[in-house]
Amino acid sequence: MIETLYWEDNNLYLLDQTKLPHKIEYFRCTNYIAVIEAIKNMVVRGAPAIGVSAAYGMALAELDGLDLDFVADQIKKARPTAVNLFWAVDKVLEQYNKGISSVQTAIDMHREDIEINQKIGEYGSSVIDENDTILTHCNAGALACAGYGTALGVIRRAHSDGKNISVICDETRPVLQGARLSVFEMQEENIPVKLIVDGAAGRLMQQKKVDKVVIGADRVADGGVANKIGSLMVALAAKNYGIPFYVAAPMSTFDFEHNINDITIEQRDPKEVLCINDSYITRPDTVVENPAFDVVEKELITGIITEEGIKKPF
Amino acid sequence: MIETLYWEDNNLYLLDQTKLPHKIEYFRCTNYIAVIEAIKNMVVRGAPAIGVSAAYGMALAELDGLDLDFVADQIKKARPTAVNLFWAVDKVLEQYNKGISSVQTAIDMHREDIEINQKIGEYGSSVIDENDTILTHCNAGALACAGYGTALGVIRRAHSDGKNISVICDETRPVLQGARLSVFEMQEENIPVKLIVDGAAGRLMQQKKVDKVVIGADRVADGGVANKIGSLMVALAAKNYGIPFYVAAPMSTFDFEHNINDITIEQRDPKEVLCINDSYITRPDTVVENPAFDVVEKELITGIITEEGIKKPF
Repeated sequence: MIETLYWEDNNLYLLDQTKLPHKIEYFRCTNYIAVIEAIKNMVVRGAPAIGVSAAYGMALAELDGLDLDFVADQIKKARPTAVNLFWAVDKVLEQYNKGISSVQTAIDMHREDIEINQKIGEYGSSVIDENDTILTHCNAGALACAGYGTALGVIRRAHSDGKNISVICDETRPVLQGARLSVFEMQEENIPVKLIVDGAAGRLMQQKKVDKVVIGADRVADGGVANKIGSLMVALAAKNYGIPFYVAAPMSTFDFEHNINDITIEQRDPKEVLCINDSYITRPDTVVENPAFDVVEKELITGIITEEGIKKPF
Repeated sequence: MIETLYWEDNNLYLLDQTKLPHKIEYFRCTNYIAVIEAIKNMVVRGAPAIGVSAAYGMALAELDGLDLDFVADQIKKARPTAVNLFWAVDKVLEQYNKGISSVQTAIDMHREDIEINQKIGEYGSSVIDENDTILTHCNAGALACAGYGTALGVIRRAHSDGKNISVICDETRPVLQGARLSVFEMQEENIPVKLIVDGAAGRLMQQKKVDKVVIGADRVADGGVANKIGSLMVALAAKNYGIPFYVAAPMSTFDFEHNINDITIEQRDPKEVLCINDSYITRPDTVVENPAFDVVEKELITGIITEEGIKKPF
């Protein structure tokens, strides 16, 4: 499997996800500022992958002899919605204050993330039946994590358990993580996969062509789950047609200190909507609203698949 | 207002909607085969505009001295879902058999389509309130009709009635009629408009940023309405958040001889999904399902705005 990120000779290498699937290129981060830029520009994305990258960002800062409290604050500002970013930076800081090097903490976190995903896959596979067609939105795959994936980890595990399954990927505008990343991951593993536009998910459910929905999460909080824009509409359609709707996410995504309606939903550059592959789809001066996430309300969720089992935390 | 189509010197000129808003170019049809190609390739699209174009296609065939029964069958095969195509061709044939020239029937139909849209606008404006934000999907505008528009006709009329309204357009993947056509029509008339990705409609409704939804229809039949893919998910979200959901469509779109679940939903070329502006968004060999329409079930519809008033025909 292609590596989402790796640490070598005290540098962090991030698979540049803005270029997939057309080019496989790694972006080298020699300092924490490059890590912040990579998170902002979605060279690396997905809540768990952002968390591990942020930890390595702290490691780079420590190697440069910088004030880690200051750096932690800077890194936390990179993106506002995925809670793993804050969780990872705080954990590195806490370990550092106990005398454990940030490099060591980041490497541990990296390994643990993959182990956690494998546990999520194990629990998740238990809800997947033979001949299921599973719809997913965005990319909660190996590329969204240090490896393996959460939602796609569940699918990966069900497939390797020998279940005859197939996958439908929403393309996931504006950044097309479904078309570019999830489809690519499934193709790499020879798991049957079909691509649809986001608006077609309801139709396929109406026609009973979807048996389960599994998505990832950027934050699980009181009242619901924040995930990639479009998740809510998928959840509403699944509810309407009686299709189980699962969220696969590590416990580090849980934040029950906040209500989901009080968290910051990132608004991103209008250009993500206006341009596809650097070419404008409409007039460049068009007014755009571009929320990166929405909120799936707790009533719409069948269960949260975590490394500790399937939870109904609401 | 820019003309969707016009008849001049016994030729039909169609505004090439595949090139909007970047280029304003007319596609000249000198024979009915060119009209069929234009309908298939979506040079002209939108149920009413397809109907009027098909009528002019019959006129071109009559001028060429062809067998109109044969030509009628050929034109009807251009696209399967919008009922106006069949309706218009049959009407031209009926008039021709009564001794009325196809050119005359087409010209009458063209004029009537605009009058019908203006009536729809009048009835529809009555449900639009001061300060409403209206969400629309795809393009049921002047460009989808011989002029003025159905859903956008309602918005146009509410605006010209002096109501302070604003519009949110779903971009409407795969062909982006919302981003390319509806946004363009609203900008041309200085009606405040905002563009979103299709997946964001639910979020905006969740945040109470949408007061009404108005869309067009390709067919109104027993049990519901067929319209552009994505309409169903918008309707499900509107229902969930208690937002009125209107369909604006001429009576020629009604087909109560069929159940909506029995009509043919066109499947279009995977390339529409795989390519945007001729550039691939993922691997060219990716398997795609590309239904052009979905079905909005009658329970989700507040009312159908027609030239005869607002109906609840179900």
